[in-house]
Amino acid sequence: MTEPLRIGLAGLGTVGAGVARLLAANADLIAARAGREVRVVAVSARDRAKDRGVDLAGLAWEEDPVALAGRADVDLLVEAMGGESGPAKAATEAALARGAHVVTANKALLAHHGAALAAAAERAGAELRFEAAVAGGIPCVKALGEGLAGNRVARVMGVLNGTCNYILTRMEAEGLAYADVLADAQRLGYAEADPSFDVGGTDAAHKLALLAALAFGTRVDFDGVMTEGIDKLSLADIAHAAELGFRIKLLGVARMQGEALEQRMRPCLVPAASPFGKLEGVTNMVVVEGDAVGRIVMEGPGAGGGPTASAIVADVIDIARGAHSPAFGVPAALLRAAPRAESGAPAAYYIRLALADRPGALGRVAAALGAVGVSIHRMVQSADEAEGGEATVLIVTHETTRERLDSALAVVAASDVSMGAPVAIRIEPV
Amino acid sequence: MTEPLRIGLAGLGTVGAGVARLLAANADLIAARAGREVRVVAVSARDRAKDRGVDLAGLAWEEDPVALAGRADVDLLVEAMGGESGPAKAATEAALARGAHVVTANKALLAHHGAALAAAAERAGAELRFEAAVAGGIPCVKALGEGLAGNRVARVMGVLNGTCNYILTRMEAEGLAYADVLADAQRLGYAEADPSFDVGGTDAAHKLALLAALAFGTRVDFDGVMTEGIDKLSLADIAHAAELGFRIKLLGVARMQGEALEQRMRPCLVPAASPFGKLEGVTNMVVVEGDAVGRIVMEGPGAGGGPTASAIVADVIDIARGAHSPAFGVPAALLRAAPRAESGAPAAYYIRLALADRPGALGRVAAALGAVGVSIHRMVQSADEAEGGEATVLIVTHETTRERLDSALAVVAASDVSMGAPVAIRIEPV
Repeated sequence: MTEPLRIGLAGLGTVGAGVARLLAANADLIAARAGREVRVVAVSARDRAKDRGVDLAGLAWEEDPVALAGRADVDLLVEAMGGESGPAKAATEAALARGAHVVTANKALLAHHGAALAAAAERAGAELRFEAAVAGGIPCVKALGEGLAGNRVARVMGVLNGTCNYILTRMEAEGLAYADVLADAQRLGYAEADPSFDVGGTDAAHKLALLAALAFGTRVDFDGVMTEGIDKLSLADIAHAAELGFRIKLLGVARMQGEALEQRMRPCLVPAASPFGKLEGVTNMVVVEGDAVGRIVMEGPGAGGGPTASAIVADVIDIARGAHSPAFGVPAALLRAAPRAESGAPAAYYIRLALADRPGALGRVAAALGAVGVSIHRMVQSADEAEGGEATVLIVTHETTRERLDSALAVVAASDVSMGAPVAIRIEPV
Repeated sequence: MTEPLRIGLAGLGTVGAGVARLLAANADLIAARAGREVRVVAVSARDRAKDRGVDLAGLAWEEDPVALAGRADVDLLVEAMGGESGPAKAATEAALARGAHVVTANKALLAHHGAALAAAAERAGAELRFEAAVAGGIPCVKALGEGLAGNRVARVMGVLNGTCNYILTRMEAEGLAYADVLADAQRLGYAEADPSFDVGGTDAAHKLALLAALAFGTRVDFDGVMTEGIDKLSLADIAHAAELGFRIKLLGVARMQGEALEQRMRPCLVPAASPFGKLEGVTNMVVVEGDAVGRIVMEGPGAGGGPTASAIVADVIDIARGAHSPAFGVPAALLRAAPRAESGAPAAYYIRLALADRPGALGRVAAALGAVGVSIHRMVQSADEAEGGEATVLIVTHETTRERLDSALAVVAASDVSMGAPVAIRIEPV
């Protein structure tokens, strides 16, 4: 394997340009580790004139990424364009179809078409790698697919969107409302002008779907992820959760319930002293629980040109070394189409109620919960003083199901002691 | 690659029996991920009759591990005996010599003979893998050698000995003396009857030497690790460090100083709020700082049958898949014999002084430090009240070298205001 590995680089935005810069900056080191030279031979991007901080002179330039993927002198396509379909999908398919390897950062593409693309790669004897698609620079795809491959995974969890974690961290630390922190995050470049993809949970859910497939040998099932963003979270709940020793995180959780796959990407309470509870700012975290290894925690930068390039180049080096493994850890034909779990596994819940401040109100709540078998672990009237005859009551339940809880809260909401819609947020045991 | 991968298992203690159990318990899953059956065909251990919680019936039994390594029906030797020389070394060499792969948990063997064994593996076209030798179940060898391989590593750090971290955690949390916690740890099975290998820092230094070689492409140089254990640490310093917002950890640090390799495994102060500062109990942690990725933190169980077996089986699955990469990330011939850094890079230091409680004492200290250019960041008289005319003074310096600091402390110690030997501990910026 002394021939250079020839790279076609599709997309020269933050990620693509980062890859070009890293391959140039650490060329000697990368060649030593890869066992051969890794050389970008051709690129594809919209704007040919733009300065990307890296010398692109002498490289072939293709207007069309599919043409790039089809070039006979490209051994490996780095797909750094993004998008769940369109040119990214077409170029990936074109490369795999002729047996060229593909390394991609494209979580949306894989979340929607992962199983089909993995099968296409296998048919052609090509590698399809996507370390950069999940948690940026954290080598968590490799950890699940290789480093912990001897384990039966009990649960995989992740804080996988830095924008959301940044917003939640600042809301709690500074007592700021969601909209104010979001505006600041946009100003600082931590959030997009249209933030819905991040704050709505879709981006993180894409990543969770990939982790779940790797962890459990299931077909990627993005539509099966129960997704809820952080945009509806109130500062009050963040503050009350903190009073009770918790933090609210947009937490992804995947586990098997028997044969059914449970995938959730929703705001959860986690103990403040847990690894997730201590995670601040734009940093990502992935936690894997395996039957042999116990709990492994990985933390690092989840986005940005450098971390993403680090992940892409690691995949490139693996392929240069001749590594050969299925995209999702097992051959595509063995990936199971698991049924979707109907709801999350039982858990404790945090409840916030606005109640009429009068005798018997708490008793009514306790009765409603008790009637469906939901037992109360803690109940406190919040430090917020009752105003206008209204009291804020916080409850931490013992383990129950969401269905039971919702039926009890419907009873409370319909009663005359309720002064506002009840809030219930799952407490994930971590 | 539909032929089974045939394993010879040398050693059936905690680690070896753990591997046998994991390969049996998760056989289907491992076969799916490996792309072929992984089958133990022969074993070697001292006591044939002992119950190890796994069915060994039908396996060939070799008295001599070297004979096991030489068996024609063994494709891969799992070396789980331990020891830096003797049978472990002989069996490893015997397997590699005939082109059989070796997966080992043996940090001592690799710390002393890593470069030679890596070269032997390459000559024979065999794989030599050792994920289990460093930080137990944390896939950190894979992270450094593969997942972060595109990075120039600035620094790699680790809390790599669970026994030491357990002892330090309890000393601080419960205010107990070293000897008392050690005795308790021995009773609970967290420390060996002869704990010197752990508490003296040797075990952790072995692991650091392996991480450094992977991170920097240098020849493993265990003798170049500046090693100091936790057995001389006083409870007073742990408590005073906490007052100042730090914790004391047995922290391994490796970095390049130009062409020279700095490797330290010594007690250090780290900020209490840093990842290392928050690490409690027997858990291990590895932190890698790369030029592209930034900082990656990995945390998990550093020892025990399950986590160690997880790491070994991951290596076995890689080899079953046909992965091929040099043991230390680059071909053995490219591993540089780096000169040893003469001392640690400049850092801030914690100083504890017992001074005569009289006017001018602090001034003498300040003058001695100032004379060699050591400037003071904080100086406090400890909460310990002066007794018998003696005061405890704590100093946090600005960045300086150990040599300057020692020359100043020698002046203080020789003066008539000093009532006891000064203590100085490095503060590692993490």
